Amino acid sequence: MEICLGELSARLGVTLIGDATVSVSRVAQLTNADARSLAFLGDSKYRRHLEATAAGAVILSKADAGACHMPVLLSDNPYLTFARAARILHPDSPVIGGRHPSAVIDPDARVDPTAWIGPLVVLEAGVLIGPRVFVGPGCILGEGVRIDEDSRLIARVTLCAGTQVGKRALLHPGAVIGREGFGFARDGERWIRIPQVGRAVLGDDVEIGANTAVDRGAIGDTVIGHGVKLDNLIQIGHNVEIGDNTAIAGNAGISGSTRIGRNCTIAGAVGIAGHLSIGDDVHFTGMAMVTRSFPEPGSYSSGIPAMPSAEWRRNVARFRHLDDLTRRLKHLESLLETMKETTERGNS
Amino acid sequence: MEICLGELSARLGVTLIGDATVSVSRVAQLTNADARSLAFLGDSKYRRHLEATAAGAVILSKADAGACHMPVLLSDNPYLTFARAARILHPDSPVIGGRHPSAVIDPDARVDPTAWIGPLVVLEAGVLIGPRVFVGPGCILGEGVRIDEDSRLIARVTLCAGTQVGKRALLHPGAVIGREGFGFARDGERWIRIPQVGRAVLGDDVEIGANTAVDRGAIGDTVIGHGVKLDNLIQIGHNVEIGDNTAIAGNAGISGSTRIGRNCTIAGAVGIAGHLSIGDDVHFTGMAMVTRSFPEPGSYSSGIPAMPSAEWRRNVARFRHLDDLTRRLKHLESLLETMKETTERGNS
Amino acid sequence: MEICLGELSARLGVTLIGDATVSVSRVAQLTNADARSLAFLGDSKYRRHLEATAAGAVILSKADAGACHMPVLLSDNPYLTFARAARILHPDSPVIGGRHPSAVIDPDARVDPTAWIGPLVVLEAGVLIGPRVFVGPGCILGEGVRIDEDSRLIARVTLCAGTQVGKRALLHPGAVIGREGFGFARDGERWIRIPQVGRAVLGDDVEIGANTAVDRGAIGDTVIGHGVKLDNLIQIGHNVEIGDNTAIAGNAGISGSTRIGRNCTIAGAVGIAGHLSIGDDVHFTGMAMVTRSFPEPGSYSSGIPAMPSAEWRRNVARFRHLDDLTRRLKHLESLLETMKETTERGNS
Repeated sequence: MEICLGELSARLGVTLIGDATVSVSRVAQLTNADARSLAFLGDSKYRRHLEATAAGAVILSKADAGACHMPVLLSDNPYLTFARAARILHPDSPVIGGRHPSAVIDPDARVDPTAWIGPLVVLEAGVLIGPRVFVGPGCILGEGVRIDEDSRLIARVTLCAGTQVGKRALLHPGAVIGREGFGFARDGERWIRIPQVGRAVLGDDVEIGANTAVDRGAIGDTVIGHGVKLDNLIQIGHNVEIGDNTAIAGNAGISGSTRIGRNCTIAGAVGIAGHLSIGDDVHFTGMAMVTRSFPEPGSYSSGIPAMPSAEWRRNVARFRHLDDLTRRLKHLESLLETMKETTERGNS
Repeated sequence: MEICLGELSARLGVTLIGDATVSVSRVAQLTNADARSLAFLGDSKYRRHLEATAAGAVILSKADAGACHMPVLLSDNPYLTFARAARILHPDSPVIGGRHPSAVIDPDARVDPTAWIGPLVVLEAGVLIGPRVFVGPGCILGEGVRIDEDSRLIARVTLCAGTQVGKRALLHPGAVIGREGFGFARDGERWIRIPQVGRAVLGDDVEIGANTAVDRGAIGDTVIGHGVKLDNLIQIGHNVEIGDNTAIAGNAGISGSTRIGRNCTIAGAVGIAGHLSIGDDVHFTGMAMVTRSFPEPGSYSSGIPAMPSAEWRRNVARFRHLDDLTRRLKHLESLLETMKETTERGNS
Repeated sequence: MEICLGELSARLGVTLIGDATVSVSRVAQLTNADARSLAFLGDSKYRRHLEATAAGAVILSKADAGACHMPVLLSDNPYLTFARAARILHPDSPVIGGRHPSAVIDPDARVDPTAWIGPLVVLEAGVLIGPRVFVGPGCILGEGVRIDEDSRLIARVTLCAGTQVGKRALLHPGAVIGREGFGFARDGERWIRIPQVGRAVLGDDVEIGANTAVDRGAIGDTVIGHGVKLDNLIQIGHNVEIGDNTAIAGNAGISGSTRIGRNCTIAGAVGIAGHLSIGDDVHFTGMAMVTRSFPEPGSYSSGIPAMPSAEWRRNVARFRHLDDLTRRLKHLESLLETMKETTERGNS
């Protein structure tokens, strides 16, 4: 996709300073750009790269526009403008309706003629595929799965029976949505599996990363809100509810029946216990261990950052006695209090 | 599946109080049940939902049976009775023997005529499939894999060469069982891969969650005992042995050659180092970091629960000096001891 | 594979003590070996197993060779010699060129005639498969994927568009390489996805475990160096670079744009934040939480090892007040200093 800066600035709604006829055809970093590349400066501390860059044009904020030798696109939020420009320069390929002959499609599945069903896909009975949906190679869609318009399953996505996917969703390879969750009752030493009769329901604009698993509800549904973004290798237990526009990074795990609010960010490898309630605008930093509800907005953390192993071993050994340590400190405090009084009496 | 309470109570072996001709056809929660639903009250603290529920019948304990306006099934363990009732109301669909024409089945594979081999399945040479086994779409079974009667592979399960699966197992999409594990010898800076010649052997009534990986043994087998339940995204290293009826929650990882006893529960994201020995009836809470053997029954924990980030930063900064802190405390204690003696001598 | 000890010792370049005509055909542990098995003793503390073993031959160091009743192969590094012997006794099966008729191969894909394309594989346009490459059942290779000679994809590996794989790589089931990574710009409450236009590039002799995910670069490439070994269920974010011969164990996660040096070992479930720089020869112990760069070689750790839950609860409660505790200690120290001076003045 090649576009001249005049048209690009118009589509982005930003001011262009420089030659409007210059064309760009891809995005690049300042440090590896060429004359056909559009780069951006998101943080003034990288300003030194501006002078050396060979980029055809740069998106930056007014403050950094100073002595730029190439055309610039002015933006209050260069990163966001860059994201939009990147989508113009690197658009998703359009979906061409059809079915690969190797796909196994149940006669009871309904597929919009503008949707693409790729090679070696399986669609079971009752599947409903909306307009312009892309179902890439090797996907398996169980009974009664519904996918709304413009959603894309890149490849090898498994949607178990009953899973519902909204519009413009993006599902990556290895994702498993709607499997029967982990529900058992104990019978003496044995575990009795409890049928999981709910569904997994994904809103519009949801993204699910590679090898991420979202279990169906036990009774009632697991609900992933609109605009929720899940990275790779995440585990979402049964009956979890995630509010709109919450983003969760890789290796995180949310245990069953926990509710998470809107606009939260949950960093990598965070673990959230079950049956908790997390409010809107809550942010957990990486590897946080969440064992209680956090209804209030804010940033929450846990974990001990890595340090040299020898130092860590010494501190950890002390941690085992932290309770004892605290008691000893208390004892000293009261002892000292007594001594002080005694001394003061002695001195008076 | 519709069943009248008279028959249901008889099959469950529990006492019915109320109209035996009332029928139920599904399970539900007290809060969203209708007249055709069977609900349960597992914990007296939710008793308030009893009055408002529209459930056709409720399973509860004698203590809660009081002023119930609908038929009740009395149970000493309402949750277990509910699990059993759910399996009656929502039975697995029966397996109908046959092979989908798109399956790729080696002539040397033996499939019981009552087993189902789904679309786009691959069975390599020497595979042995027992009676009433369900092999869902997209599963791949390597050379010499054996699956015993009544096991179900929902979809897209990969069983690598030599894997053995017992009876009534339930394997979810994305599970990878019996891959060659992570075994290397160092040769200068390079790693020399060591062929892994053992197998992965799963007992009866095993459940393996979505995208969980169980490596084959290096020499000798990786052994998953009867009734073991593994959730999603779990990593089980080579030559691990897991005792009967142990349950492991999502994102956990067990390193190579560790032995885990019977009836253990291992919560989400627990990490267990290699070559350890964990006894029977050991329980690890979520995200526990297990670096030594725990031969004795009991509950074990680690990790720092999340707290406001500012507070966490202050405490973590102190943790780095915990050893120093302890030494300073000790110093104070001895100093104080000396001073006390001095003071006492002074006062005497 | 059967081989006599004379030939084996010659191929391994080690000294044989004993009957050169004895043959072995497999590797085993000392404790479960038979007369056709080759075992090894890597650590003198297991010397007691030597007497009881039924192994046909044993690899050990000179120090342990003493009173051995069976033929021995002397090695300075028995484990490495064992690894090499195991590869001789259990060689990979040779790859026989061809294509399974069920594979879906784009006419624009180029496959070396000595490579094997297994059942139900999908090769999209522009795929390039080198000599003796093995592409097992169910693999999906997107547009423009290139795999160099002698690499093996066991089964169900997904290589997204543009992924490059070097020579002699070994990729396990469920691995997803080169998916579009997790890159968004915030637009008010919504997330705008940023097209990811880089690639995932794997060097020679790379191993990727089951269900591991390696994202493509956002701009520029994600680079996995030669000889890098990744275990199962690992997440590698976009634009990560990993130096040669670094090994990473299961459940670990590396966030975007972090660079890791050569010859590092990263244990299980380690989490490394984004945009960090980790030097050569850095070792992180299990579950370490890496929040800053570690440019220097060394071993680094974090986390609290598991302890009895009651004890843990007490210590954790104190941890929340560690900052306060430290302040109180400081206060005591200064108080005591004052008292000492006072006492000394009093006594003088």
